[in-house]
Amino acid sequence: MAATVLVSEVGPRDGLQSISSIMPTAAKLAWIEAEAAAGVREIEVGSFVPATLLPQLADTGELVRAARQIRGLTVAVLVPNLRGAEAAVQAGAHKITLPLSVSETHSLRNLRKTHAEVIEEARRIADLLRHLPKDQRPHFEGSLSTAFGCTLEGRIPDATLLRLADALMAAGCDEVGLADTSGYADPGAVRRLVRLVRGVVGAQALTGVHLHNTRGLGLANALAALEEGITTLDSSMGGLGGCPFAPGASGNLVTEDLCFMLSAMGVDTGIDLEALLEVRKLIAAGLPGEALYGFTALAGLPLGFNDRGQAA
Amino acid sequence: MAATVLVSEVGPRDGLQSISSIMPTAAKLAWIEAEAAAGVREIEVGSFVPATLLPQLADTGELVRAARQIRGLTVAVLVPNLRGAEAAVQAGAHKITLPLSVSETHSLRNLRKTHAEVIEEARRIADLLRHLPKDQRPHFEGSLSTAFGCTLEGRIPDATLLRLADALMAAGCDEVGLADTSGYADPGAVRRLVRLVRGVVGAQALTGVHLHNTRGLGLANALAALEEGITTLDSSMGGLGGCPFAPGASGNLVTEDLCFMLSAMGVDTGIDLEALLEVRKLIAAGLPGEALYGFTALAGLPLGFNDRGQAA
Repeated sequence: MAATVLVSEVGPRDGLQSISSIMPTAAKLAWIEAEAAAGVREIEVGSFVPATLLPQLADTGELVRAARQIRGLTVAVLVPNLRGAEAAVQAGAHKITLPLSVSETHSLRNLRKTHAEVIEEARRIADLLRHLPKDQRPHFEGSLSTAFGCTLEGRIPDATLLRLADALMAAGCDEVGLADTSGYADPGAVRRLVRLVRGVVGAQALTGVHLHNTRGLGLANALAALEEGITTLDSSMGGLGGCPFAPGASGNLVTEDLCFMLSAMGVDTGIDLEALLEVRKLIAAGLPGEALYGFTALAGLPLGFNDRGQAA
Repeated sequence: MAATVLVSEVGPRDGLQSISSIMPTAAKLAWIEAEAAAGVREIEVGSFVPATLLPQLADTGELVRAARQIRGLTVAVLVPNLRGAEAAVQAGAHKITLPLSVSETHSLRNLRKTHAEVIEEARRIADLLRHLPKDQRPHFEGSLSTAFGCTLEGRIPDATLLRLADALMAAGCDEVGLADTSGYADPGAVRRLVRLVRGVVGAQALTGVHLHNTRGLGLANALAALEEGITTLDSSMGGLGGCPFAPGASGNLVTEDLCFMLSAMGVDTGIDLEALLEVRKLIAAGLPGEALYGFTALAGLPLGFNDRGQAA
């Protein structure tokens, strides 16, 4: 297991796109600034999709420009296509992620694109990036969503996943990620697919996973990923987003609980847990009436706990 | 990791003692019978404590006698002392568990006994059991509670834990268990303490752990225990009990989620997941107004999922 792990906050994108409340830009920025100050080094601040589709994320450009001013923070965004990537480059995002649903049925419903069409977008985006000066070139990730199965197709054959991972790299992605969009993963499947995909793209081209907590296995799956040498884990403050099914059931990994687990195990995240827990107050203030999830915030830190693990 | 794991249901004891509602005996028995029919092979049906202290469990003797009639079911009970063990033997329990809090402060508050006094009870219980005919002799477990730390003392020195594990075995227990009473465990600590305690008592004398989900790490901790070769995991239907802090925050491992994880990983539990999820309805009917937790019940099983893991 790596001694240092990057916790990548996706709440301002994956969290806010899943709820109907629209968080004011100033409140989002207060959240992003406070979480970065608590030590979180990568935050996905939004998605360059048409504002008519996701009005919650209409201020993504403004957020990228503001968040770029935060020293040491990697500002990430989701892009569905070349047009989104152009907007991301213009705003100055450090990292862009293009989702490719391994379930083609899901891809058609979600992005209205076949696999071939998404791969073609990846090729165009890579071409755009290749012509930028190196210091303005964002890191480009292809995210293999529904990698562990899909509510429309069930489990997807390994061959499809491996073919698409290979195609994304061939199209010019810097790396691929595995996303458990539907909460179908289990620790065994995480291990197996990380190994299989790394076998195709190389270990250096699969460093991150995006796990959901739909069936309560989120942190167990994260542990399995860590044990396979994964070094970047996506999560969301208060468990916002990730398609929760009901109150009490967070969809995304809860950033606070993930950071507690990592810290308790002595894994360095650079994050101050007490400061992180304080960030919840800002989010709650910016989203009146929305439920925030997570166990650690309710239970508090163990007596004698400090950020180097449990006190001796 | 073992190919077969025993899921030991503790809801009728740990769950029901933590809530103020008193479940009628007939409803408890309907729960126990249905859960056994779903394939659960061990159920802790109650605790032999004075009814004045825990009126919720006043019918433990009756439950043991009735549950003994269920073919293939190991009927377990908690006992705080020799008197409880005598009642358990008289009722015909197959397994008795004596808790010994590794935190002496907690032991004094909870059982009003010092470590030495609990060890003395263990010795008396072992003496009682030794004189029974073999086919009437229950299995005797000493459970090391607050093994991972305590809200009163924080983390407990390893030496104390190891001394008490050794003392329980010397007193005549058949095995010891590790219990994360306060939800202080993390996967690293689970691995470390399982190895340390097994180093003292032998691997065959530490086969089970009792984990809580207080800070959301329950299933991750269970995974770590499984990877260390632990073969018995305690859990509670609907996450009842285990000192939850707030709605949405279950205290115990949720039996349904644990069984989903094990089944998805291809670990044999003998449990039919669909039948298990049906048991929730009986519990809800017997405990009107009480919240039941767990993610799998809300999300349902993945499309194409069957008990041999995700369908190909």
